[in-house]
Amino acid sequence: MGHGGGGQLSADLVEHLFLPAFGSMGPTDLADAADLTLGTGRVAFSTDSYVVRPLFFPGGSIGDLAVNGTVNDLAMRGARPVALSVGFILEEGLLLSTLGRVADALGRAACRAGVPVVTGDTKVVGVGQADGLYVNTAGVGEIPDGVDIRPGRATVGDVVVVSGPIGQHGVAVLSQREGLEFGTDLRSDSAPLHGLVARMLEVSNDIHVLRDPTRGGLASSLCELATAAGVGVELEERAVPVPAEVAAACSFLGLDPMHVANEGRLVAFIAPDAVEDVLVAMQEHEHGREAQVIGRITDAHPGIVVARTRLGASRVVELPLGEQLPRIC
Amino acid sequence: MGHGGGGQLSADLVEHLFLPAFGSMGPTDLADAADLTLGTGRVAFSTDSYVVRPLFFPGGSIGDLAVNGTVNDLAMRGARPVALSVGFILEEGLLLSTLGRVADALGRAACRAGVPVVTGDTKVVGVGQADGLYVNTAGVGEIPDGVDIRPGRATVGDVVVVSGPIGQHGVAVLSQREGLEFGTDLRSDSAPLHGLVARMLEVSNDIHVLRDPTRGGLASSLCELATAAGVGVELEERAVPVPAEVAAACSFLGLDPMHVANEGRLVAFIAPDAVEDVLVAMQEHEHGREAQVIGRITDAHPGIVVARTRLGASRVVELPLGEQLPRIC
Repeated sequence: MGHGGGGQLSADLVEHLFLPAFGSMGPTDLADAADLTLGTGRVAFSTDSYVVRPLFFPGGSIGDLAVNGTVNDLAMRGARPVALSVGFILEEGLLLSTLGRVADALGRAACRAGVPVVTGDTKVVGVGQADGLYVNTAGVGEIPDGVDIRPGRATVGDVVVVSGPIGQHGVAVLSQREGLEFGTDLRSDSAPLHGLVARMLEVSNDIHVLRDPTRGGLASSLCELATAAGVGVELEERAVPVPAEVAAACSFLGLDPMHVANEGRLVAFIAPDAVEDVLVAMQEHEHGREAQVIGRITDAHPGIVVARTRLGASRVVELPLGEQLPRIC
Repeated sequence: MGHGGGGQLSADLVEHLFLPAFGSMGPTDLADAADLTLGTGRVAFSTDSYVVRPLFFPGGSIGDLAVNGTVNDLAMRGARPVALSVGFILEEGLLLSTLGRVADALGRAACRAGVPVVTGDTKVVGVGQADGLYVNTAGVGEIPDGVDIRPGRATVGDVVVVSGPIGQHGVAVLSQREGLEFGTDLRSDSAPLHGLVARMLEVSNDIHVLRDPTRGGLASSLCELATAAGVGVELEERAVPVPAEVAAACSFLGLDPMHVANEGRLVAFIAPDAVEDVLVAMQEHEHGREAQVIGRITDAHPGIVVARTRLGASRVVELPLGEQLPRIC
């Protein structure tokens, strides 16, 4: 509890654990707020809390997610991420070595993404008042002039593209859950996507909508976008890339891969004239190699996502009601 | 748990609880990140998590703290706060009515401060994995041209000013703790201070350092600043305004009022030539009426805070080691 009191132990934690972990990606002065210089007047701002269990899983950890998740939320606005804040909530008794591993992973992910942690906060709560640790990150980014990516820009005729195979993050985390461990070679797809988005925007400004299909999976993202924009989405089910291991695990667990969380994928609505060039650019990028067209935007059924099944039938894709996979991110 | 799953129940929570509570201070579109237009290229950025217990206390709630705490961190850079993010971590079984009261308080505080909530996130964890609810806020603000407020600007000869009586927040929260309830008329001092700071900056740009003495109280803030800036602080103990009720409660609880948290106070290091004008301006402002000089910056004992006691003796003011008052903010 002492490490959360704002006294000497808190200062030690910052000096000896967080600052070394965040390295050159950490705050340079210890003021209450960071002072950033941005090259543009348009700022993207986003936040997410991370409560994933277990803290470490194949292909990543809560530290990676906390960086990549917030970086990706900024990227989905077309923004260049500039800085992150980190807020830890620690449970009394958490091993400092565990906190150190998380902080290291977070620092490495920030370094890989090229986005520094510039400000932070730590609170400690009692035993049984948290579950190890939770992390919140917020991020700010610059939105380049002329970039306007938001749900409202969805246009009838837009082509729907997904940047790669779906479901890997959710299945990788579940494979490590206590009482549920199963063997799989799958690793989380956790990755920062702002480089991919920047490359897409170099090719064309006719990228209308971007979303990273995290909690609730591809189905939730498409349903939310259809509702927000008042357009219909027609999905070609067999075009949606589902790795064989994901399909097998989902069949075993009784899940729909379309509802499983991703942490390094994006779905884009792109003007039909631009889609070929953007797709080529995506496929040349490490995080978009398996990008493909999965559907299009229609005015036939506003607010509704319809999937054409492998058998040629149509089914309505629904927003899941609640929690299929608790604490997946 | 369903409300944390990113599905229909999550959407309902946003639509029917958060958006009405945040009112015109809430997000206007439901994208992953907010798009802000700032009038300057200098952006202040800060975050804090709030785990105060109980959630409601005399003079405030976790909702007020979450707004005022982050607004104040921005103000301590001299920034004009522009927008807030809010991240909730909810414990399964939390009453929706409790969440509603917190969200309402948060929305009202945002309205009072004139700083909208523009983006947010909600996670739900199982029973026994949190304690009701935790809130994280992050904030962005504009730093006006020419404003440069940071620990490193502390200068020998600067006058130390506190904006009002200390210790009220900590004592008000403790008076409601289970097993500790005691009668007091004290209310938390929780308040947004950016208006007061703006008024101070209108009078003079020679405000070198600002800090809000929250966790760890006035003692921690002064010790941290002395260390960060490599200067000594000489404190006139009898000049530090301690309300009689705070003194009585601290004596009863065995606490030093200098270590008790505040949520609507600031301490400033001000150039001696400017201090008289700034003090008058502060005293004319609702959040600075009882502002007064409590000490000065010296080169006699770098990194150390020395208090002259009421009896004329000197004592070293130390950074508390750890946690005197767990979960006070």
